Amino acid sequence: MGKERIPEAAIRRLPVYLRVLEELSEDGVDVVSSAELAARAGFSSEQIRKDLAYFGAFGTRGVGYDPVVLSSKLKRILGLTGDVKVALVGAGNLGTALARHNLNRHKEVRISAIFDRDWDKVGKSIAGVEILPIEDLEKVIRAQGIKMAIIAVPAVEAQAVADQLMAAGVEAILNFSPAKLQSRPGTYIQSIDLMTELQALAYYTTPNSGSARLAGDEREVSEGEVSTV
Amino acid sequence: MGKERIPEAAIRRLPVYLRVLEELSEDGVDVVSSAELAARAGFSSEQIRKDLAYFGAFGTRGVGYDPVVLSSKLKRILGLTGDVKVALVGAGNLGTALARHNLNRHKEVRISAIFDRDWDKVGKSIAGVEILPIEDLEKVIRAQGIKMAIIAVPAVEAQAVADQLMAAGVEAILNFSPAKLQSRPGTYIQSIDLMTELQALAYYTTPNSGSARLAGDEREVSEGEVSTV
Repeated sequence: MGKERIPEAAIRRLPVYLRVLEELSEDGVDVVSSAELAARAGFSSEQIRKDLAYFGAFGTRGVGYDPVVLSSKLKRILGLTGDVKVALVGAGNLGTALARHNLNRHKEVRISAIFDRDWDKVGKSIAGVEILPIEDLEKVIRAQGIKMAIIAVPAVEAQAVADQLMAAGVEAILNFSPAKLQSRPGTYIQSIDLMTELQALAYYTTPNSGSARLAGDEREVSEGEVSTV
Repeated sequence: MGKERIPEAAIRRLPVYLRVLEELSEDGVDVVSSAELAARAGFSSEQIRKDLAYFGAFGTRGVGYDPVVLSSKLKRILGLTGDVKVALVGAGNLGTALARHNLNRHKEVRISAIFDRDWDKVGKSIAGVEILPIEDLEKVIRAQGIKMAIIAVPAVEAQAVADQLMAAGVEAILNFSPAKLQSRPGTYIQSIDLMTELQALAYYTTPNSGSARLAGDEREVSEGEVSTV
């Protein structure tokens, strides 16, 4: 497939570039340098050039990129052409927030089916999409040709839901449960563990007076690379 | 500070290693090879060795790591010693989900203050933490010595909230709004845009029959690196 050769981090930056390019298109901008694109997207221009180079040559050297052309190409690379339907499993607080978030942005990607195992929720709607019983998951996903799904169920239920989704033909899953999920060959699972993110965030704060944290000089040992993600 | 030298992606992997090491400690495991740690954490052993090397030498060559010792060191590196308090701004569906998620895991990091501008919510509690009026934000954050915060408010309000948080002494922010936020020097903002994640996810699905996506061979142009994040 060749997909494995391109870093996930690069793939995850493409939608950020896309958003900036679409803003520029709407503003009627004809050409944008990688430096300008970088400043707006919050990455270095080297990073942007390197990321785009994975997919071929896009800009005009010394001039820049045409926002309309490049955003169209990025959409094709990402597969954001036509109507990209997503299934959401779990209509609790997180699932509800995700479904509502969906409402007014990114028309290319939309939650088209919501499932929950709680019969008190079944039949209700979030942002105009009806909550269906989890028993209908495979049938509905196959009927709609859905290939992407979001898991927003408790950790103990997450692997069973992932298995059901993969059995139904889903190829890419965004997992918001703290469970570490096993994927099948040909399926991609991206987990977002909110508490893992918080723990990483703590690194960027200064130690409290009472803490036994490593001293600053101990943390500078490495001549490591500049942050790129 | 030296912090800039270490890739954010490496920092964000440390909590994942930490979780695996804590599980191993609980299971009474005395020593773990980087290969075993890698298999459990879902990364390559090269990746783990490289990440840990930023912070010095930890394991015994040819033997492995002591889970108790390494997890303790990772906690110190991340600053997860003592009681790490986090402020949450926004008690809507997403904020509520985040606060509940907080309940039963990671005792080192806890949401200790929740703010909302909606007076119908003020005075209620989520997971035992009372929702306070946003007007009290600076006072409470200073009183509690909070240095980390989560933004779960609508995009239009997010920058104003971030500014208030930074003015109150918050140094690291996890932003769940789709707004691109400006940080001040000495402050770190990590944004999690749910729709950006979904757009990136689309890359990992096969094209629908009707789509105008790039052909597979066009997507294999690069001899790019193996995915590391």
